[in-house]
Amino acid sequence: MISQRLFAEFLSTALLLVTVVGSGIMAERLAGGNDAVALLANTLATVGGLYILIELFGPVSGAHMNPAVSAAIAARGQLSWTLLPAYILVQLLGAACGAWLANAMFGLPLLEFSTKARTGVGQWLGEIVATVGLLLVVLRAPASRVAGMVAAYIGAAYWFTSSTSFANPAAAFGRMFSDSFAGIAPGDVPAFIAAQSLGATLGVTINKLLGKNHV
Amino acid sequence: MISQRLFAEFLSTALLLVTVVGSGIMAERLAGGNDAVALLANTLATVGGLYILIELFGPVSGAHMNPAVSAAIAARGQLSWTLLPAYILVQLLGAACGAWLANAMFGLPLLEFSTKARTGVGQWLGEIVATVGLLLVVLRAPASRVAGMVAAYIGAAYWFTSSTSFANPAAAFGRMFSDSFAGIAPGDVPAFIAAQSLGATLGVTINKLLGKNHV
Amino acid sequence: MISQRLFAEFLSTALLLVTVVGSGIMAERLAGGNDAVALLANTLATVGGLYILIELFGPVSGAHMNPAVSAAIAARGQLSWTLLPAYILVQLLGAACGAWLANAMFGLPLLEFSTKARTGVGQWLGEIVATVGLLLVVLRAPASRVAGMVAAYIGAAYWFTSSTSFANPAAAFGRMFSDSFAGIAPGDVPAFIAAQSLGATLGVTINKLLGKNHV
Amino acid sequence: MISQRLFAEFLSTALLLVTVVGSGIMAERLAGGNDAVALLANTLATVGGLYILIELFGPVSGAHMNPAVSAAIAARGQLSWTLLPAYILVQLLGAACGAWLANAMFGLPLLEFSTKARTGVGQWLGEIVATVGLLLVVLRAPASRVAGMVAAYIGAAYWFTSSTSFANPAAAFGRMFSDSFAGIAPGDVPAFIAAQSLGATLGVTINKLLGKNHV
Repeated sequence: MISQRLFAEFLSTALLLVTVVGSGIMAERLAGGNDAVALLANTLATVGGLYILIELFGPVSGAHMNPAVSAAIAARGQLSWTLLPAYILVQLLGAACGAWLANAMFGLPLLEFSTKARTGVGQWLGEIVATVGLLLVVLRAPASRVAGMVAAYIGAAYWFTSSTSFANPAAAFGRMFSDSFAGIAPGDVPAFIAAQSLGATLGVTINKLLGKNHV
Repeated sequence: MISQRLFAEFLSTALLLVTVVGSGIMAERLAGGNDAVALLANTLATVGGLYILIELFGPVSGAHMNPAVSAAIAARGQLSWTLLPAYILVQLLGAACGAWLANAMFGLPLLEFSTKARTGVGQWLGEIVATVGLLLVVLRAPASRVAGMVAAYIGAAYWFTSSTSFANPAAAFGRMFSDSFAGIAPGDVPAFIAAQSLGATLGVTINKLLGKNHV
Repeated sequence: MISQRLFAEFLSTALLLVTVVGSGIMAERLAGGNDAVALLANTLATVGGLYILIELFGPVSGAHMNPAVSAAIAARGQLSWTLLPAYILVQLLGAACGAWLANAMFGLPLLEFSTKARTGVGQWLGEIVATVGLLLVVLRAPASRVAGMVAAYIGAAYWFTSSTSFANPAAAFGRMFSDSFAGIAPGDVPAFIAAQSLGATLGVTINKLLGKNHV
Repeated sequence: MISQRLFAEFLSTALLLVTVVGSGIMAERLAGGNDAVALLANTLATVGGLYILIELFGPVSGAHMNPAVSAAIAARGQLSWTLLPAYILVQLLGAACGAWLANAMFGLPLLEFSTKARTGVGQWLGEIVATVGLLLVVLRAPASRVAGMVAAYIGAAYWFTSSTSFANPAAAFGRMFSDSFAGIAPGDVPAFIAAQSLGATLGVTINKLLGKNHV
């Protein structure tokens, strides 16, 4: 049922943001200024969360949790173009609700906006690289391994990109609502989303260039 | 044999608490006040322990190690209601024995009570969220992956919930007996268990709403 | 061929000690006195090393790397009793050679003895618990998952036991030759081995009590 | 198509160096002088990156990302000797491009040279051990597990070898172009590559000695 698919997409994206933002808040509180330890904790929580969310919700909705992924899946003919706007809408709504739920759990104002600057050519390049990689994983991973591979990829990309690898317009949108370690100032979101869109397009192109021939 | 099932459920819950409490004590001793590093170590030990306990004892007793899980499994018709009280009893007993064994290994008084306050609306909300997620994992994971998925989920939830995700009335009961990083003051246990019960009910409901349709 | 099996058992045990001792030295040097971070690094290296050693050498020799495991496997009829002494001999020899190779890599005296005290009822109890658990994993894990399960188990047990879980007489023997974080003073080895032997016997017994019935 | 294989080999090696160098820069910046935490982060990023790169690009080009591996695969008859020079060329080119892309993301000069000394008998021995182990993994791992096993192996070897386990002439080449935690001074590269070549030869020999007999 379409309503169940949209509910799954909403819920998985909400729980992804709960994971990212909640663990960001917890890590920041416990790490006492040691940013590397905080990002390690944030990374491990995100890896575990992504893995189980894709395993759980993949069979229901695909568990894209990401408009760039949904668009690429639609371009491949595995999501109808008429459903795409609804997918994106519930992903954005889910992302915001996830951030709000994290705020509620940690006793923060439900509605707050991030003041964390994330900008500059280096970070935009980081988002392009991050999204290229994510699209290659999503488009090429065998179905039985995609959950672990996306989780492993994002865990690595948190560290190897200068932007800590959002690679997801819904995540960028939701993280606006967290004035924490994991947040992004609203004014910096549009450039991130532009970089992610460019990265997604590039990822789809590289995927085609690589072909499917086996050694 | 029922006696073997109950023995497995007792032993797995005891070893779970040995893992959680023992690694909590070790982490606290070594971390020198760096709470984020201590929770990282506690998390990794719990993830590894949960994974192998479910793999090892799942075929014998189901390896629920958790009254909320046993109740949900009974509601699904996979555990007889007449066995449920015995399961819960050995889980509680195992949890206490596990904490005592951890205390013995680390040279602490066998019987001690936690003084660690864990209370407030935020943490109760954390326990609700944590238990909803755990129930979704338990009820929806494919059998061949459930051990890794429960482990990954709890590892993430230690960080993304404000309560560090007990999500288990037996764990809350057993942790009372550890005056460490991993403990919980006895007076705070009832509210945790109430929140976990609410979360379990909500998790069962959401599981039904999601249905089983595949993309 | 028996010579290949013994060579594999020698080599895998040597590489296990290289992993444990080498990563212990590296961790101690880099951690600047933060013992929790050092043990985290030591743990992760051991987990990765154990996993690949069992995958690689399991098909050749069983990759026991551990006299207690070899004895339990012999008791189950899967290793001939006449081969057991040779297995134990090459495991001990491999363990020593592994420690010496680690010393050589890190510019330490090839032959040195540990001064690290590891003693007391709590730690002996820790070794008993650690070895019970290891034997349960080895005797009950499905063959296709045993490598990951042993690795996950030891990773957890480094933290949840008070002794950091040697659970292996060959490892205790080899670690004598490293005056590092990972070492053990020679005088403390016999009691560790006694505790491991008791734990192995107890593990075999509990394994029988649990039976094999499936839920 | 050969062009696709070479493109895959170029791209995977570039992304490997992006992972290693990028996470090295990020870790160094965030860790505030805590080298153990920095290497932990660098390790986890490398493990995740290696895993997904081998899964993704293995079916296209083999995803060797390493001249020593390509040579061993050619010696086994699974890569034509006429293709080997092209493989090595694109690996070296990819490694350099990966380092440059990491520099660009992190706002560093595109072309810089490392000043990090990595030399001495201990570290050369470390590279020999590291490459022996890598070759054993590559030559003996079952195809369905090789990605996870290589990743786990390198993650462990970052810690148990005194050289932090480059085990890869292309990685040594590419890391010259990063004046970071992850770099290596150009003058130290030839000895590393010599040690890696020796280790690869030794690994191939040990692999033959072990045979394939199963327990």
